[in-house]
Amino acid sequence: MPESEIKKIVIIGAGNVATNLAQALTKAGFDIIQIYGRTDHSAKALADKVKSSYTSNLNDLNMEGDIYFVSVVDSALKDILKKINVGDKLIVHTSGSTPIDILKNSSSNYGVFYPLQTFSKHKKLDFKNIPVCLEANSDRNLKLLTSLAKTISKNVKNINSEQRAAIHLAAVFSCNFTNHMFVIAEEILNKYNIPFDMVKPLILETAKRIADEKPHKVQTGPAKRDDHETIAKHLNMLVNDKEYMEIYKLITENIIKHKNQTE
Amino acid sequence: MPESEIKKIVIIGAGNVATNLAQALTKAGFDIIQIYGRTDHSAKALADKVKSSYTSNLNDLNMEGDIYFVSVVDSALKDILKKINVGDKLIVHTSGSTPIDILKNSSSNYGVFYPLQTFSKHKKLDFKNIPVCLEANSDRNLKLLTSLAKTISKNVKNINSEQRAAIHLAAVFSCNFTNHMFVIAEEILNKYNIPFDMVKPLILETAKRIADEKPHKVQTGPAKRDDHETIAKHLNMLVNDKEYMEIYKLITENIIKHKNQTE
Repeated sequence: MPESEIKKIVIIGAGNVATNLAQALTKAGFDIIQIYGRTDHSAKALADKVKSSYTSNLNDLNMEGDIYFVSVVDSALKDILKKINVGDKLIVHTSGSTPIDILKNSSSNYGVFYPLQTFSKHKKLDFKNIPVCLEANSDRNLKLLTSLAKTISKNVKNINSEQRAAIHLAAVFSCNFTNHMFVIAEEILNKYNIPFDMVKPLILETAKRIADEKPHKVQTGPAKRDDHETIAKHLNMLVNDKEYMEIYKLITENIIKHKNQTE
Repeated sequence: MPESEIKKIVIIGAGNVATNLAQALTKAGFDIIQIYGRTDHSAKALADKVKSSYTSNLNDLNMEGDIYFVSVVDSALKDILKKINVGDKLIVHTSGSTPIDILKNSSSNYGVFYPLQTFSKHKKLDFKNIPVCLEANSDRNLKLLTSLAKTISKNVKNINSEQRAAIHLAAVFSCNFTNHMFVIAEEILNKYNIPFDMVKPLILETAKRIADEKPHKVQTGPAKRDDHETIAKHLNMLVNDKEYMEIYKLITENIIKHKNQTE
């Protein structure tokens, strides 16, 4: 058990973030005393992984927790908060896009604990390098969250709600939209009977090369080269998929515009 | 020197692809006898790296080569080919988007040697895992290219011109457009004084997680969850940048459409 005023943890949520967070906290020595999930099935699946009790009834919330993590999809957060009562216990949400104030009627001790990563229930990630963005309603609570966060990550930052919203938006571009580029690439390849494996080394290198360079410095390809002939060929290949064509056009125009601004 | 009928290599081009290719071939034991570059400066820079002669005059092309790689930007390819005469020597281009036929008047022995990767002059990549897409005008030439390619990569494929064009288009989505998502992310973060470093672990994980999973299976984020409240918040944050807003809208709509098709 790490040295911390926080020992017992209740996790409200059993999705991708909750699963990875619960596992990291267990590994760090904390006691997860209860998992709440929307269904017994989802709650039990996570509870089994971290040797915890579980419930799917918010009225049965264990009141012995030192901290309550509310880690549910953003669209469910408001409803869940209305239904729970944690007294004056420390309560945090894990949402990038939600301001800290959403918690102000839930307790006099509250904060945000936002791990910036894309999580899956089925893949356990090492939290060590995952940035954890913290915000709290008091110095004392920020201190508590900081000491907690540092047990699982070496990348802990104080981030206010406005900054966190920007980080979340940047994450949508860096992760979700990027992943959708992979979806489109796969579909194009499949149409020509080429396995998606072909572009995997390229995808990995694209992510690795920005480790030490600014992304606009490492841009390559027809848009960057103002190669209108190749761009025209590509648009022609997308003629039967207007939406991909639109996406191609818009991003290409934006790369060209950027290029002209930074040259 | 590897066992191969090809021993002496001339490389026409001194850019990103030419640089990485020349270095990989040198490492495999081939003799790069000449580099042509648009300027003496660019030609010499690469020639020095691979202990080769160089020229910036196409009339001075060394005729002793067993193979001639034309590795120039797509838009310059046609012009360069008009200006060179390699007799009946084997000549290949390295372009993803250009059909093999562009070479048919350049020699009776020709082909394509397309390494599928994003290259930089300044970063030497290990060719071992880079897919090399080959096409040739005869079985004999394909055999020659295959044995050459296998000395630098363990991922050598026969790919026709139509497939290669599709691969190149998929590469633009997977690499150039993905990289542009990073450019946008960085700009958003900078506006809020947050270092781009924050999203680097996320970017790396996004690339890694598709190693064993189809990209649409690992999609996360507000579009995937049909979280219209968060999407509206994001669009609101982009209100002063219409182009980013358009890109956000278009990709988000496409993720939602895909989701509904595959669910």
